[in-house]
Amino acid sequence: MRRRRKRSTENKPVALPQLERQVLKNRFAPVEPLDDEQINTIHEATMTLLEDQGIEVLGDMALDLFRKAGAEVSDSGMVRMDRNLVMETIATAPETFTVTPRNEENALHVGSNVINFGMVSGPPNVHDCINGRRMGNIADFENLIRFGQFFNVITFFGNQATAPTDLPANSRHLDTLKASITLSDKSFFSTGIGGGRSLDAANMCAIARGLSMDELAGSPSAMTNINVNSPRKLDDSMAYGAMQLAALNQPVAVTPFTLMGAMTPATLGGAFVQQNAEALLGIALLQLTRPGAPSIYGGFTSNVDMRSGSPAFGTPENSLANLAGGQLARHYKLPHRTSACNASNAVDVQATYETQMALWGSVMGHGNLIYHTAGWLEGGLVASFEKVITDCEMLQHMSQFLQPLKINLEEIGLSAMEEVGPGGHFFGCEHTMNRYKEAFYQPFLSDWQNHENWVSAGSKDATQRATEIWPKILEEFEPPPLDAAIAEELQAYVAKRKEALGKEEPMLEPML
Amino acid sequence: MRRRRKRSTENKPVALPQLERQVLKNRFAPVEPLDDEQINTIHEATMTLLEDQGIEVLGDMALDLFRKAGAEVSDSGMVRMDRNLVMETIATAPETFTVTPRNEENALHVGSNVINFGMVSGPPNVHDCINGRRMGNIADFENLIRFGQFFNVITFFGNQATAPTDLPANSRHLDTLKASITLSDKSFFSTGIGGGRSLDAANMCAIARGLSMDELAGSPSAMTNINVNSPRKLDDSMAYGAMQLAALNQPVAVTPFTLMGAMTPATLGGAFVQQNAEALLGIALLQLTRPGAPSIYGGFTSNVDMRSGSPAFGTPENSLANLAGGQLARHYKLPHRTSACNASNAVDVQATYETQMALWGSVMGHGNLIYHTAGWLEGGLVASFEKVITDCEMLQHMSQFLQPLKINLEEIGLSAMEEVGPGGHFFGCEHTMNRYKEAFYQPFLSDWQNHENWVSAGSKDATQRATEIWPKILEEFEPPPLDAAIAEELQAYVAKRKEALGKEEPMLEPML
Repeated sequence: MRRRRKRSTENKPVALPQLERQVLKNRFAPVEPLDDEQINTIHEATMTLLEDQGIEVLGDMALDLFRKAGAEVSDSGMVRMDRNLVMETIATAPETFTVTPRNEENALHVGSNVINFGMVSGPPNVHDCINGRRMGNIADFENLIRFGQFFNVITFFGNQATAPTDLPANSRHLDTLKASITLSDKSFFSTGIGGGRSLDAANMCAIARGLSMDELAGSPSAMTNINVNSPRKLDDSMAYGAMQLAALNQPVAVTPFTLMGAMTPATLGGAFVQQNAEALLGIALLQLTRPGAPSIYGGFTSNVDMRSGSPAFGTPENSLANLAGGQLARHYKLPHRTSACNASNAVDVQATYETQMALWGSVMGHGNLIYHTAGWLEGGLVASFEKVITDCEMLQHMSQFLQPLKINLEEIGLSAMEEVGPGGHFFGCEHTMNRYKEAFYQPFLSDWQNHENWVSAGSKDATQRATEIWPKILEEFEPPPLDAAIAEELQAYVAKRKEALGKEEPMLEPML
Repeated sequence: MRRRRKRSTENKPVALPQLERQVLKNRFAPVEPLDDEQINTIHEATMTLLEDQGIEVLGDMALDLFRKAGAEVSDSGMVRMDRNLVMETIATAPETFTVTPRNEENALHVGSNVINFGMVSGPPNVHDCINGRRMGNIADFENLIRFGQFFNVITFFGNQATAPTDLPANSRHLDTLKASITLSDKSFFSTGIGGGRSLDAANMCAIARGLSMDELAGSPSAMTNINVNSPRKLDDSMAYGAMQLAALNQPVAVTPFTLMGAMTPATLGGAFVQQNAEALLGIALLQLTRPGAPSIYGGFTSNVDMRSGSPAFGTPENSLANLAGGQLARHYKLPHRTSACNASNAVDVQATYETQMALWGSVMGHGNLIYHTAGWLEGGLVASFEKVITDCEMLQHMSQFLQPLKINLEEIGLSAMEEVGPGGHFFGCEHTMNRYKEAFYQPFLSDWQNHENWVSAGSKDATQRATEIWPKILEEFEPPPLDAAIAEELQAYVAKRKEALGKEEPMLEPML
């Protein structure tokens, strides 16, 4: 097995054994729960839904694009697209593409069998076992960026690791963009609420890389993810945020918010059709804005608890939806965004089995961008520091699991077996001595001491051990080097934009 | 999706939502980490190992069988088999078979893509969060049988859920056999240490079903699992226990104890070759004893922590070994026994991610009999009551995940989407009302309350909730009905045998 144990240079300070930074590929064929007939049934029903019922779209600029393309647009904003028009329109989206952050070594490969693990995004609250539960703030946001930068297994950030509720809502995106660019040199999604925020993201990504906007269009950096307001409603702020980045040839994921039983029928079939229709219409809008703009098929299908209406994640249905979402994305030759979430209130056994169910579904379904793989808790209401740590351990397990096996006579070691003989042990033999340091994956969180030693060390469970790890990472964290002139230019951009905004919202409509 | 939510009648008392008893099949193609060339390399090295170095076998009756078959047997008991002899000998083993316990409805299907989840077996200690950690005793043993009987997702028991150390070692197998037969009507493996214990198991299984030994041979019931004392040593007690059951046409699993770095070279290649050689030689012995005797290819390959020598489970290597073991078993057309273990000291996040890694490897590799899936802790030193509960929840998740999807126009519900309209919700519509009770898998352990309600309810994590569940199961447990005459006959058999044994060990050699 290839060894990737070496600590990367940028993470020198904290002595955690990490796998090396890598482009992770799933060498196994995707696990596929839908047969060809089922795929066809879903496709046909999706097309019927788009033709007969349509999707409500807010925003005249978006409706104009649909109308010009030949879609039927009602007075109330219902967009109905003929199946041929849908298929022709989405056909211009690339099957794979690369996103380049300010450190080109961290280029994000999107599509095919490449698997990327992303940090939690979205929670309004933060929790850790030292400071308790609180509303998210900019300091927490920055710490979550530090964690994601520190762990090599994390290759991208979602829209917003937590909401910095201590900052003004109209300009906080500038602070999070600055933090994302200065504290990390990995790729990130930005908040795509309206054209103005998206334009700020593109401008700052261009500054970070010393590129013009034309050059940025040729080498995308600024991503966003938009949600469709399921069932079948695309808000103007989402549509415009997405259109702005698409116009600049930057990548956009379109992710319907399809919680079965609430936002879709209480069936996987219904959810797949609705997810499919909503995602494809959103991607059609991106392609109408700029044919060829990198577009990502997003899936977030899970179920609600039918007794309470609460969202559930990491359920068997969610795991199957993650697999099936991959099938549907491949059917339309689009990269796939999925998620590994849970609905637990604590970093406990439940949080872990739910995350594992969702994660295995995502990975075995060839999820190209797996959101929320580190730190998600409480169904997305909390970003948890301990969960970041336990999740990154699980992601390293998964990453190592996907490495190819090295099987040859030297590795097999028949002569070592002869040397040791029946009933002996291999601890001291040369074959072992040559390999023992790198022989097996070395976890940073698992405790394999015997019971007596474990009790002597304080009987700490994995969550308690995680509480000992994350403060060290923050304490010793050093941001990746950034050219002083670029840092200054970013700061100047933020200052100028904040002054221009004052107390106003950033513009809603994109500059196309 | 097929619904299997109904509580089965035998488990009426405790109000846990359980999946129905079922023959669980993995409808997905097995995930296979080895390519054809690697399989061939392992096969060739295995045959070379069996031809050139051989396996040490203790016990004259076993050595006689090998010698008569044409194997080379040295004075020190090294058995070397020509590759043709190995392949011809194991070829008589059936690819699939059925094991019938006293309740025929619980027939255990072994082989093909059927997945069976088994209880923990082997630990000398027991733990629960109410009574703490202790040496295993017969009361604990019986409670572990009760748990396994209660949960429909468990379809078999391993050799010994915990060692009843409060009973005399020479006769405790009679007590555990009696408990296994009276408190449960599912299939179980018995302790196969020596011919005498195996014969007792077969006799008592025959009594339980009202069969003669000839009839039992035509409808197997009494299973055992033997371990090869890796590297390359088969003890006489193991060989003889296995041979006795094979002679009676009862199923035997042969499981090499191949912890990489200690009992095998510190490589997956070395472990696969050694596991393969040891398992195939053991199965050859079964087939020489009685051609056609049901035989199971066992795999227990995991690694040790190379810093301490402690065993590790649920590692990436263990998960890959579970997958590869399935490939090797299928290569030899044998059913596959594997395991889902962990090495955690607590029922915590680590215990859960390790179990999940091993479980996914076992299930996706088509493990036909997956040992230790409920209750294993501390690398096998402890059977944990809380872990039984959390594991059975995970097994239900997995079981539901494997169900086929029902995708058709009625399930998809385009008219429900029309009824609800953009931006609405599906809670009240008829399509949902017709399905909500059975729409999604309903866990018994997961808590999806919001944070405030969860705090009001005591902020209990999943392990604490498990502590509230297991006592109720024990309290309300009712053993499955057993004919009074059979119960009496079993009791008489135990009494007679105990008297005959006195303080003597049961006989070592099998009665062939």
